[in-house]
Amino acid sequence: MSELRKDPIRDRWVVLAPDRLKRPNDFHAAKAGIGSVCPFCPGHEGLTPPEIIAVRAEGPPNGPGWSVRVVPNRFPALRVEGTLDRGGDRLHEQMNGIGAHEVIIETPRHEVDLGDLDVKQIESVLWIWSERLRDLSGDIRLQSAVVFRNRGEGAGASLLHPHSQLIAMPLVPPVLAQELEVAGRHRQSTGRCIFCEIINEELGRETRLIAQNEGAIALAPWAPRTSFESWVLPVRHGARFEHESQESMAAVAEILRTTLRRIGLALERPAYNLILHTAPLRSPELDHYHWRIEIAPVLSTPAGFEWGSDCFINPVPPEESAAFLRKTPDK
Amino acid sequence: MSELRKDPIRDRWVVLAPDRLKRPNDFHAAKAGIGSVCPFCPGHEGLTPPEIIAVRAEGPPNGPGWSVRVVPNRFPALRVEGTLDRGGDRLHEQMNGIGAHEVIIETPRHEVDLGDLDVKQIESVLWIWSERLRDLSGDIRLQSAVVFRNRGEGAGASLLHPHSQLIAMPLVPPVLAQELEVAGRHRQSTGRCIFCEIINEELGRETRLIAQNEGAIALAPWAPRTSFESWVLPVRHGARFEHESQESMAAVAEILRTTLRRIGLALERPAYNLILHTAPLRSPELDHYHWRIEIAPVLSTPAGFEWGSDCFINPVPPEESAAFLRKTPDK
Repeated sequence: MSELRKDPIRDRWVVLAPDRLKRPNDFHAAKAGIGSVCPFCPGHEGLTPPEIIAVRAEGPPNGPGWSVRVVPNRFPALRVEGTLDRGGDRLHEQMNGIGAHEVIIETPRHEVDLGDLDVKQIESVLWIWSERLRDLSGDIRLQSAVVFRNRGEGAGASLLHPHSQLIAMPLVPPVLAQELEVAGRHRQSTGRCIFCEIINEELGRETRLIAQNEGAIALAPWAPRTSFESWVLPVRHGARFEHESQESMAAVAEILRTTLRRIGLALERPAYNLILHTAPLRSPELDHYHWRIEIAPVLSTPAGFEWGSDCFINPVPPEESAAFLRKTPDK
Repeated sequence: MSELRKDPIRDRWVVLAPDRLKRPNDFHAAKAGIGSVCPFCPGHEGLTPPEIIAVRAEGPPNGPGWSVRVVPNRFPALRVEGTLDRGGDRLHEQMNGIGAHEVIIETPRHEVDLGDLDVKQIESVLWIWSERLRDLSGDIRLQSAVVFRNRGEGAGASLLHPHSQLIAMPLVPPVLAQELEVAGRHRQSTGRCIFCEIINEELGRETRLIAQNEGAIALAPWAPRTSFESWVLPVRHGARFEHESQESMAAVAEILRTTLRRIGLALERPAYNLILHTAPLRSPELDHYHWRIEIAPVLSTPAGFEWGSDCFINPVPPEESAAFLRKTPDK
């Protein structure tokens, strides 16, 4: 059973998850020459816990016939079962590991990546992310959820089959808390959403623009932590991903696909992390926060300086990465 | 020339350093079967920029005869030359890349690690770190410095020869700013240094104790981000590493050596990052901050969840890692 502990020096929670040590890893199996059976491929549905939801053209749950399938993580960092207990003293705050940890299997195809799928299939993946967020919003113990995907061993993936993950937590994590605070201050002092301002500016000048359509934009941020970091955002303001309209989501799916394909072609299918940044569960429609998808190719290893300062050293200015991606084909 | 840019959403500076793309990497050279000449070995002093300071038994600067040698990084993230200019608007704050980036070559021996050196040699390394901090404190453009070492390719090292690095910056980075703030609040509400409190408690119970002597302690923190994260601290309160007495430094060198040797033996010489956390340059003797050395073995890859939340998942509770290290020999 996991436990959440608060670092008293950094005001930040850590998940202690002893069960995670037992995870299998098909990259290591491949290196060692061990044949491994993919638990995410059609016909192997019995190798995962029973599905939570699926997009399926045919067949009953937990058999083939699906195009997107959501299952609990077999080695969850946090679990739904139990009541949320908080304890400890000032130097030793803790909670039991309540939350949710789900796996979104994005396609029945094993050897592809998200950007290789057609726009409709990517739309299905986004729709199922939002469906899960809507459902988990009903659990009042949970305050936020991070949807993410790790592609490639260098990005921390343990399985190859295309999948994303969702971890819902009984707290608002530091990244989101700080974004809410900074964006809130910006709104107070300027009356504007900082993300809408950035979008408008990039649409106007193209300096850090990667791709755009009517409803969505991909851009390189002003101060990217990693080379080729790219953001995909809806052009119209929206704080909660799960409230996005179908029309806007279709536009986002198209731009996400273009961005992933260009990154894949430009950097020869790099390992990358993809992160959905969205407002806390059940928050009202915030006028200062704007959801986005961040894509961070893994081109270097964070080292002592980064861990010790939280300042990152990036050798590629965003104007250069964006210009390079703009001229990269997406077919 | 590097540039510092502030991320307007996260209130955090990023170093854009295009020159860093050209760095050589002897791990990749080794993999490719390319013979490479180590620029840090005795006799190769001409392959580094001229030395800043050295501990040497004989010979003139920039030749053999040294036991510890400090040189500017050939591919610096930040540079001393120039005046500090700040510019940009609210969404695009920037500074030019003023700072310092130095390499501390810790021994003439190529194929060892810091923990393999004798206590006196480790003391020399610590002394030269503090000497550099004292010297850089004279540059009023610089507000803080991070001393760190990356051991092994998995920890971001590009060269094998034992070395640490120092990056001084014209700002206080987020990690230090937050530690100062949280520790300051603790001091205000309790009248105590939070680090002294933690040390006293661990000395009393041994739950997370790794090693101790009269002047120093090694412990596993309550909420470690990574498995086997270990801290080495002076037992007596001190905020600035460069103000530490020689006696205390000798005690720290001994405990640091013990800790590194135990980690090396327990985890089969893992890649690790080591970070010196110390108060800002020229700060008064703060009663709420306490310097420390953090050692974080690299046993897993940070992935989308960690980057997206700043919450870390750690499968090894600190009580277990400390107990394991306590019983590991250090000879």
